[in-house]
Amino acid sequence: MAGEPTPDQIASGEFVRVDGAALREQMARLFVALRVSEEHAAIASDILVASDLRGVDTHGVVAGLRYLDQIESGLIDATVTPRLVRESAGSAVVSNAGGLGVVGAHLAMRTAIEKARVNGIGHAGVVEGRHIGMVGYYPMMAAAQDMIGMAVTNANRSVRPARGADPRFGTNPIAFAAPAGTERPFVLDMATSTVAAGKVRRAHALGLPIPRGWAVDAAGRPLETPPGGRDTSWALTPLGESSDGEGVNYKGYGLAMMVDILAGVLAGGGSSADLDYGSNMSWFMAIDISQMRPVQAFKADMDLLIRYLAETRPSDPARPVVVAGDPEADAFEYRSRAGIPLHRDTLATFRLRARTLGTPSLV
Amino acid sequence: MAGEPTPDQIASGEFVRVDGAALREQMARLFVALRVSEEHAAIASDILVASDLRGVDTHGVVAGLRYLDQIESGLIDATVTPRLVRESAGSAVVSNAGGLGVVGAHLAMRTAIEKARVNGIGHAGVVEGRHIGMVGYYPMMAAAQDMIGMAVTNANRSVRPARGADPRFGTNPIAFAAPAGTERPFVLDMATSTVAAGKVRRAHALGLPIPRGWAVDAAGRPLETPPGGRDTSWALTPLGESSDGEGVNYKGYGLAMMVDILAGVLAGGGSSADLDYGSNMSWFMAIDISQMRPVQAFKADMDLLIRYLAETRPSDPARPVVVAGDPEADAFEYRSRAGIPLHRDTLATFRLRARTLGTPSLV
Repeated sequence: MAGEPTPDQIASGEFVRVDGAALREQMARLFVALRVSEEHAAIASDILVASDLRGVDTHGVVAGLRYLDQIESGLIDATVTPRLVRESAGSAVVSNAGGLGVVGAHLAMRTAIEKARVNGIGHAGVVEGRHIGMVGYYPMMAAAQDMIGMAVTNANRSVRPARGADPRFGTNPIAFAAPAGTERPFVLDMATSTVAAGKVRRAHALGLPIPRGWAVDAAGRPLETPPGGRDTSWALTPLGESSDGEGVNYKGYGLAMMVDILAGVLAGGGSSADLDYGSNMSWFMAIDISQMRPVQAFKADMDLLIRYLAETRPSDPARPVVVAGDPEADAFEYRSRAGIPLHRDTLATFRLRARTLGTPSLV
Repeated sequence: MAGEPTPDQIASGEFVRVDGAALREQMARLFVALRVSEEHAAIASDILVASDLRGVDTHGVVAGLRYLDQIESGLIDATVTPRLVRESAGSAVVSNAGGLGVVGAHLAMRTAIEKARVNGIGHAGVVEGRHIGMVGYYPMMAAAQDMIGMAVTNANRSVRPARGADPRFGTNPIAFAAPAGTERPFVLDMATSTVAAGKVRRAHALGLPIPRGWAVDAAGRPLETPPGGRDTSWALTPLGESSDGEGVNYKGYGLAMMVDILAGVLAGGGSSADLDYGSNMSWFMAIDISQMRPVQAFKADMDLLIRYLAETRPSDPARPVVVAGDPEADAFEYRSRAGIPLHRDTLATFRLRARTLGTPSLV
């Protein structure tokens, strides 16, 4: 399965499989040791471990360990509680107050869902936000309640606008989920850049070239040798940039700006242009399907659409057509049984953290 | 200015400039002659001519002439009135009843705006829909009311899913608008395919090759010679397809499906997979900015963001960074003064139509 360590990497001890529930509890204990409330620690560790279970390792407990560092450095205030600072029948502004970003995001999505249940649709924006983890988690909360969910978040600058040489946007992801019946829910979770920065870093680590169109140098010229280390002169390209013969495909750039308007400008928390590292503003929306049509009819149509796509004749018979969320759902099923593969360095960090913070070591 | 005829094309009479108001009135008279109500004719012709004024010629009165044909052939029922068939505080289902698609879409967007004014956010889906013209028109209605607007629409199949050989989605555009203060509003209006089918047709007409990644043949192999005429064996690619070194970039495909879920499945009108030529289902959303923060503060931040982008150092000094909606706003300003350029064949069709339908010839 894609993203899983090889048998050799397991046999050599480079990666160790850890039970998801144990990892969730360990993560929560470490948060609590740093004065995060039990409630917030439970929310945060569930979001982080859900990401690991779905194979999105970059946004799982590895990010959680970073949050611990950021609590200690003061970038995240572990003691605050996010709260609604403005509200109408269908809208809300949530102040995350500089606390754990996943906790404020969770409140905002819950608020959007509650408002959708009453009004048919609800939305909430977050100000004073921090990193919210795997963005797809939040629309999945809506899908689990027979709603459509959407979430977007911004970040400090790494992506250039079309025609530009300097970065102006974060990778500004869009996530969207809708429930199905017997099929698995549709879960889209995508950066609006051509690729995530992690893909460029991985190519650098492996000594591989990157395709033209992924990134540009300080002059705005396409990079084929991935930059590494502390080089911050380069920028990612917006989605679709390289696909236009005229070199001015504006679509990914336009989507990045749409995300920034919803996440940064609408509630006033700040657009990518304003944000320092570690700050992320977000926006969440939920739609109650039952106020548009019977949920069972919606789900039956989703099942038909998903099956129709999966049965599309593939260009390469060895690579069937998949539906967004399928690879992550496959990872979830496998890792729920087999455990989450942690790199031995990550595991060592957990054990060191548990020891120094005086909490039991559970993984 | 891009998209304008050359001086030679004007001098030779190949293109003729026509006053926007006269063209709007002419279009409306032709609709009324085919039993469209005065009210619906005014709405439809305003949407069509707005598209011509903004330089989006494919969706302007050329599409309007096609609507006349479709009324005569029975594909569009000119006599019906769209109506709300289901409603809650924040949501609505509008039946277009097979009438002019732009009229049902206009009602749906107005409904979303009214609900947003009361609740903070509102949305509406259209069933039994037809072609809605320039999708960006509808979010601009919201922006003119100090709201954020969004609209999506689906269509019969022309775009393949990632890895697939056969088309499964329409070009499924996403449009989004937000007001600014002294700057012009942000207006994104983009197909979720790499390029619109029109770009492939234009390359065919000009005898030019197309870049790999725009379209695939019946076996799913990249096309470099644009197909033409009645060849329907090929498919467009989803946005971003060609930008992934692994050839499986799923983002445009995921966005196309998001559009189909909102436009086709949510209200139940049908996803691209179900639609015949001429059917288009749509979805509209409006957000009342004032229920999130003061509108003036929002607009001031929009102005700052737009200026910051426009001032980005360009990769090529000859091609400054633009913001989505700028080229169309430039065209609007120019054509509002200079007139809309109509091809002489289009003008001849208008005059023939006026004569055969017994209405005054105004252009």
